[in-house]
Amino acid sequence: MKHRYFFETISKLKEENRYRKFVNISRSCGNFPYAVNNNNQKQIIIWCSNDYLGMGQNPQAIAEAKNALDLYGVGSGGTRNISGTSQILIELEQIIADLHDKESACLFASGYVSNDASIQALAKILPDLIIFSDAKNHASIISGINNSKAKKHIFKHNDVEDLENLLKQYPLESNKIIIFESVYSMDGDFGKIAEIINLAKKYQSLTYIDEVHAVGLYGSRGGGLSQQLNLAKDIDLIEGTFAKGFGAIGGYIAGDMVVIDAIRSLASGFIFTTSLPPAIASAIISNVKHLQNSNVERENLHRNVTKLKSLLKINNIDFVDNQSQIISIRIGDALRAQKISQKLLEDFDIYVQHINYPTVAKGDERLRITASALHTDKMIEDLVIALVKVLQEVL
Amino acid sequence: MKHRYFFETISKLKEENRYRKFVNISRSCGNFPYAVNNNNQKQIIIWCSNDYLGMGQNPQAIAEAKNALDLYGVGSGGTRNISGTSQILIELEQIIADLHDKESACLFASGYVSNDASIQALAKILPDLIIFSDAKNHASIISGINNSKAKKHIFKHNDVEDLENLLKQYPLESNKIIIFESVYSMDGDFGKIAEIINLAKKYQSLTYIDEVHAVGLYGSRGGGLSQQLNLAKDIDLIEGTFAKGFGAIGGYIAGDMVVIDAIRSLASGFIFTTSLPPAIASAIISNVKHLQNSNVERENLHRNVTKLKSLLKINNIDFVDNQSQIISIRIGDALRAQKISQKLLEDFDIYVQHINYPTVAKGDERLRITASALHTDKMIEDLVIALVKVLQEVL
Repeated sequence: MKHRYFFETISKLKEENRYRKFVNISRSCGNFPYAVNNNNQKQIIIWCSNDYLGMGQNPQAIAEAKNALDLYGVGSGGTRNISGTSQILIELEQIIADLHDKESACLFASGYVSNDASIQALAKILPDLIIFSDAKNHASIISGINNSKAKKHIFKHNDVEDLENLLKQYPLESNKIIIFESVYSMDGDFGKIAEIINLAKKYQSLTYIDEVHAVGLYGSRGGGLSQQLNLAKDIDLIEGTFAKGFGAIGGYIAGDMVVIDAIRSLASGFIFTTSLPPAIASAIISNVKHLQNSNVERENLHRNVTKLKSLLKINNIDFVDNQSQIISIRIGDALRAQKISQKLLEDFDIYVQHINYPTVAKGDERLRITASALHTDKMIEDLVIALVKVLQEVL
Repeated sequence: MKHRYFFETISKLKEENRYRKFVNISRSCGNFPYAVNNNNQKQIIIWCSNDYLGMGQNPQAIAEAKNALDLYGVGSGGTRNISGTSQILIELEQIIADLHDKESACLFASGYVSNDASIQALAKILPDLIIFSDAKNHASIISGINNSKAKKHIFKHNDVEDLENLLKQYPLESNKIIIFESVYSMDGDFGKIAEIINLAKKYQSLTYIDEVHAVGLYGSRGGGLSQQLNLAKDIDLIEGTFAKGFGAIGGYIAGDMVVIDAIRSLASGFIFTTSLPPAIASAIISNVKHLQNSNVERENLHRNVTKLKSLLKINNIDFVDNQSQIISIRIGDALRAQKISQKLLEDFDIYVQHINYPTVAKGDERLRITASALHTDKMIEDLVIALVKVLQEVL
């Protein structure tokens, strides 16, 4: 049979209860976190989006996007080098550099690509580069490292002792980079930024931090956790996304001028890709600027997170406790996680996607709840009531 | 010095005259191929965009994008599996499947990602996959193949004899895929689709065609060269982009249901990426539908290409002749190519980006001219006059 292996792939996924059926929803602008479940046309409340601050529906961003559509059209028309560079993209790069107090920034089609392409470029630039990567780093970082073919060491998650033991094997003058995250996407715990910076100085290593779940959400101007901790100046490369806190799409890295210049010159995934549409870049500029000057969204988010965690504790619902907006309820079984998610959606119109392998390890399946700035107290209370019931009923 | 290797990278690029300074332009919606050169605020004519049909400024597409912004906001809010699937994306996948007469399609953040991620996924699905790749395949295909770590053979460009010699080394039942393009991006020559299909049948290989420079432009409904030649049904996977003929951003693959289902289930660059913004998808749907029903843009494009090629011949300007819209004038020297491009822009307000390594091989530097459906006869004549002068003056 011609398609034997494709059928076998699907069969295996289904047997392991990790075949993904995407929930078809329509977000409703101005009404987030409400959306419409297109399977039954009922209104649902989203509890798993990364649009943490609701910036996807910011009226100014939408107005700027519409204005840019009128002025420039839909697409950029080419790669950055071949007619695809516009003033808007340059302005966005300057704003991002400023956001992170860096000299320069470089845009990519997505956060995934920014990690994948930048890490591969770094391995081309730095001879015999040795990469030290946290065990819980995102798939895009792992892809970049594996594809770079550089020598790598995976250190135990957030274990600076393990990291130091690996670092000290190498001469000071060897090219090293430590790659880690500020807010880990699944457990929501913070990276050990200060400790890693100290080790990097001691062993003369570069540092590369993934701030995708933090930009917009942390820091006095939305510059992420490194800004909140006043540590951005000690980090060489800051990677971020426009798809979460900033409510759009696209990714970037920021750093010293010559570092960014070399990366954009050698990163295949940057060179050979059509640049971001002007309308998207205009919306992003609006949202980044807004969050540089407004704390309301961040305050609402963190207030909601605190309230939700407190209610979960009162109701004896175990979750992975941390300081972030990511609230994971470990289920540890793919089928049960799926059934809980399904029941929440069907019986309570609450959308919490269950997360399974390969996004988390097998046996670590979970519900991953993301509070946003726009959930109300009533929504939080209703979520916890629903969770109590469903967790009891679905065994 | 901390940044020694980054400085050395930049120095080397500059020494080899291949350091890229992006030309900062603003496209002018409704006015393409005119744009504004932001360095001197002069109006220029773009002759190197991939917006071949001018669909980036299609009024209906812009209206649909604006409407979607009002309805759904800017970003999709998540990955496809985690709150980022909407009716618009599903509709776009169905339209693309229909465009190529396939059962199914899957969207990606860019054409680059669609190749890179799909090829890696194929190597995970098909045990001991052997990849046969045309020597002139795009960087994104090369990236996908190298990152897949599958066994690979590079066959001489468009050389079916070489391909057959490679194919026949392997047993019929081994897993094989031939990856090639329909319109090669730099020389603009057509791939040998019929011949490759015959070999694939003879040796029981899958076929994968990259139609990025053909979709929208060729075929009675814009389904690419495989549609024009009535060969789409014999190709297993068709990869395309929304960033060129369709005037936006994003990429896709289309094929049999189970094949696409397996790829989307295993492709890391699909799973871990925020989905396309609804407004962009709406504009794309509008443009794809438009080009399924309108031949005007294709006819204008090919008329302009014919006229430009004819004028180049009359004026004894050598170019790489072919049947496509891509017109390359080989220069063979990075510095001269750069100077010619610069002079065209500064003295004639004509923007033709010079192309250098790594987009083409060293020694194969060129001007790559892309005619569009919207260039006028006067623009074509002026371009040739300018080329004659500049090619004589810049030695």
